[in-house]
Amino acid sequence: MWYTFFMPKKKGPNIKRVKPDLPGGFRDFAPAEAIIKQRLLEKVRKTFEEFGFDPLETPAVEKTEILRGGEENSEQLIFTLNPAKRGGTELKDLKKDQLSLRFDLTVPLARFLAANPELPRPFRRYQIGRVWRGERQQAGRFREFTQADIDIVGSSSPEADAEIIYVVYQLFKSLGLNRFLIKVNNRKILNCLPSWAGFPEKKLFDVLRVIDKKDKIGEQTVKKELVRIVKKQAAERLFSFLKTEGDVKTKLFRVKEDFKNCAPAQEGIKELVEIIRLFEAMKMDRENWELDFSIVRGLGYYTGTIFETTLLAAPEFGSVASGGRYDKLMMPFTGEKLPAVGISIGVDRLLASLEKMELLKKKPTKVKVLVLNLSPELRTDYYSFAGVLRGAGIPTEIYFGDDRTFQAQLAYAVKKEIPYVLIYGDSEKQKNAVTIKNMSAREQKEIPKTNILQYFKK
Amino acid sequence: MWYTFFMPKKKGPNIKRVKPDLPGGFRDFAPAEAIIKQRLLEKVRKTFEEFGFDPLETPAVEKTEILRGGEENSEQLIFTLNPAKRGGTELKDLKKDQLSLRFDLTVPLARFLAANPELPRPFRRYQIGRVWRGERQQAGRFREFTQADIDIVGSSSPEADAEIIYVVYQLFKSLGLNRFLIKVNNRKILNCLPSWAGFPEKKLFDVLRVIDKKDKIGEQTVKKELVRIVKKQAAERLFSFLKTEGDVKTKLFRVKEDFKNCAPAQEGIKELVEIIRLFEAMKMDRENWELDFSIVRGLGYYTGTIFETTLLAAPEFGSVASGGRYDKLMMPFTGEKLPAVGISIGVDRLLASLEKMELLKKKPTKVKVLVLNLSPELRTDYYSFAGVLRGAGIPTEIYFGDDRTFQAQLAYAVKKEIPYVLIYGDSEKQKNAVTIKNMSAREQKEIPKTNILQYFKK
Repeated sequence: MWYTFFMPKKKGPNIKRVKPDLPGGFRDFAPAEAIIKQRLLEKVRKTFEEFGFDPLETPAVEKTEILRGGEENSEQLIFTLNPAKRGGTELKDLKKDQLSLRFDLTVPLARFLAANPELPRPFRRYQIGRVWRGERQQAGRFREFTQADIDIVGSSSPEADAEIIYVVYQLFKSLGLNRFLIKVNNRKILNCLPSWAGFPEKKLFDVLRVIDKKDKIGEQTVKKELVRIVKKQAAERLFSFLKTEGDVKTKLFRVKEDFKNCAPAQEGIKELVEIIRLFEAMKMDRENWELDFSIVRGLGYYTGTIFETTLLAAPEFGSVASGGRYDKLMMPFTGEKLPAVGISIGVDRLLASLEKMELLKKKPTKVKVLVLNLSPELRTDYYSFAGVLRGAGIPTEIYFGDDRTFQAQLAYAVKKEIPYVLIYGDSEKQKNAVTIKNMSAREQKEIPKTNILQYFKK
Repeated sequence: MWYTFFMPKKKGPNIKRVKPDLPGGFRDFAPAEAIIKQRLLEKVRKTFEEFGFDPLETPAVEKTEILRGGEENSEQLIFTLNPAKRGGTELKDLKKDQLSLRFDLTVPLARFLAANPELPRPFRRYQIGRVWRGERQQAGRFREFTQADIDIVGSSSPEADAEIIYVVYQLFKSLGLNRFLIKVNNRKILNCLPSWAGFPEKKLFDVLRVIDKKDKIGEQTVKKELVRIVKKQAAERLFSFLKTEGDVKTKLFRVKEDFKNCAPAQEGIKELVEIIRLFEAMKMDRENWELDFSIVRGLGYYTGTIFETTLLAAPEFGSVASGGRYDKLMMPFTGEKLPAVGISIGVDRLLASLEKMELLKKKPTKVKVLVLNLSPELRTDYYSFAGVLRGAGIPTEIYFGDDRTFQAQLAYAVKKEIPYVLIYGDSEKQKNAVTIKNMSAREQKEIPKTNILQYFKK
C-alpha cells in the first residue's frame, strides 16, 4: 500500500523546491567511507564470532516506557515518534510519544531476554546497530551513530568481565592498533566515596559527573567544581583518591586499606584482583590495561566492573569502547537481578581514529574492472567478459553512461579511480583479443580473449 | 553525556514493573534468525559488489520535507520524530515533526546525489538498511523492515534497466531459487490508458490502485471495482488490456497497435523491446521473466520500466524484489530530471520465503566448540585451547555459567546445540590430552593436546 507517497498533485515546474540537506547531527557515509566502515565491521563481526558470540537484532523502535526502564520521570535524550497519519486519521494502536528510538543496545537486550526466558544462559550475543540520542547540537557529536556490542548475560563470574575486555583487546590488536589503554574500575568502590570522603549520599551523582569530565576539563577545574559541590575537606579526599598512584598492587592495597570500613568497596577490590589475575592468565600485554579509580561511566545501570578504552594516538576521540557489569538491568522487567556484563564499541569514533592513524585507507570504489561499452554490436561479448570476472568474484562494471565516446568512458574510469579498463572494439574482435589498461601503471596490454581471468588472477 | 539515563530515583523494589513487549509491527531477530539473515545479506552484498555497485549509507532520519519531496500535502505513512527534551527544554534547532524516519532508500539516494553533484556518474550504489512505515496494524505487515537496494543514476540507457533486473536474477539463482518470475512493464503505457480506454485522466490513480490489488482480490473483484470507478465500456477495455495474452511478440504487437495514437505508449514499447533484447543477450532463462501489462507498482515516482518478482513456490509473500525507472525524482531538489533506475529487495520477505522452501536452515548458534570450565587451576590451558581454535577462525566458547558441575555444562551445550565439547580435567592433564565429544555423533575421543587444531581442521 505505498501508493500514497509521491503522487504529485502538481506537475513539473510547480513542485516546490527543497534543499537537499541533512538535519544537524546526522551524516551520510558516501561510498569511500561506507567501504571502509564495512571492512571494519567485518573484522569486528569476525572477532565477536570467534569468541562465541552470536548475532541478535532488535528493532530501532521500542516502547518509550521500556527505554525509561520503569522510571517515568527519568530525564531523556530520547527521540519519541509520532504515529503516522493517513488521510488525517491517526493509527489507533499507537499514541503520540508511546514509541521511541533506542538510545543504546543494552536496554533492548534486557527487554529481549526478559521476553525470552527459555533461551540458554549464559546468553552471549553481539549486536551491531545504530542508536539515536537527542543530543544538543555540538561539533563532532552525532545524534545517530553505530554501536557494536557484546554482552554475556547469566554469568556472575569475573571471567565474563575479563573476557569481554579481552575481546576488545584482541580486536584492537588485529586492527593494527597497539597504543591503546583499557582502564578498569569498579562501581562498588565509587559507591563508598560518600561515607569515606564525608559527603552526603545524594551528592554522589554530581560528584561522579564532575570526575567523568576530568579528561575534558582538566584537574584544576575538577578540583574547583568538587569544592563547589562538597565541603573542602571532602573535595580534598576525593582528589587524593583520584590521584591514587603507584603500581597495581600498591593502588589496590591503598584503596583496600582506605575503604576498610565499607563492605561494597572490599567486594569491588576482590573483583578487580580476580580480573587482573585473569588478564595475566590470558597473557594480555601489560601496557594495554590499567587500573584507574577515576573511571566512572555515565550510564546509571552499572553495578560492578566498569571500563573504557582510549587510543593513545587519538585521545581526542575519547573512549572508543566502554562498558561494565549491570546486574540489575532486568529488574524493571522481571523484578529479579540477572548478572550481566557487556561492552560497547563506538564504531564511528573507532573508524575516525583508524583513518586518522592511516590504518584504514579510503578508496572511492571497490570496482576493479571497467568494461568499456564501445559498440552495441559487441554487447554479447561485453556481457560475457563481465560474467567471467564477476563469476570469479572480481567486481566488474560495464559502462552505461549516456556519453559513449571513448574519452568519456576513460575519463569516468579515471574519476572513479577504477584500476583496470577492458577495451574490446572492432580491431580487438578481429584478433580475438582484448586490451587491458592498467590505469595506475599507465600501461596497456593486448591479451587473448580467453586469458582474461588468468590476467586478473595473477 | 549519558548520565541522565537510568539514574534510578527510587531504589530496588519500588521500581515500576514494565512488560517487556515490543510495539505492534516490530520484531526481533533472535540469534537463530539473525544468523540466517546475516548469511543471506552476505550473499546479497557479494552479488551487488561483483556487479560493480558500491555501498552507501544514509541516516535513518531525514528532514520531513525531503521525504515529502516538496509535496506539503502528500498523504503520509511516515513516522515523524519529536525532538528530545532535556530537563523539560526542547532542543532549539529541532521542531516537532521536522524530522522523520525514512520510508525507503530511494528518496534518501536522490537527496544524497543532489547534495553531492561532484560524484562520478553513472553513480552505482547499493544500500542495505531498515525503513519504517506507519502502516495500519495487519498480520504479516511490519512497520520496520530491511530493504536491499541497487540503483544506477545517470544513465538513460535500457542497458541499466536490464542490468538491475539481471542482478536480482543472478542473486536468486545463486540462492538456489529457480522458480521465480520477474514481471516487467512500462509506466508510459499505463499513462495512455485514460485516452485509450476512455476515462478521465484524474481517475488513472484510482484505476491503477485497483489493478495493483489484482493478485490479492481476484479478477472478478477487479472487474467490479473498475466498473465502480469508470464507465462500463472503459472498464471492459481496461479488463481486456489486463488480459493481453500470447507470446511476447504477440503481446507487444497488440499493444503497439492498440495504442498507436498515444506517443508515450509507443516509447514505452520501444523500451520494453530493447530490454527484452538485452535479456536475450545476457542469456536470461526464459522462464524467469515475463511481460505483464498489469504490473503497476505503487510508488508514484516511477516514470518508465517497472518490474516486480514473485516466487512461484511462495506467492503468498507477494513481490520480493521490485522497482523501476524514476527519471524525475531529483526534480524537487535540483529542478532537473536525472535518469535513474533501481530495484529494492524485501529482505524479510525473501528470508521468510527461503526458510519456507528450506533453502536456509536455522541453527541456534554459530559456536562450534564449547570448552568446559572444570577447574580454576586449569584456566590457563582453557584460554590456550580456545586461543588456538579462535585463531583458526573456529567460533569457540569457554563455559562461564554459574553452575560449574559437569552435568550443567554438558546440558548447556546440548540446549544450545553446540556440535563439539572440549573436556580437559585432571586425568586429561596427566596424559597431556584432551577429550573431544562430538555431540551429534554421540562419541568422544581422547587426543593429544597438541592435535586440537588438526582434529577440527579435518
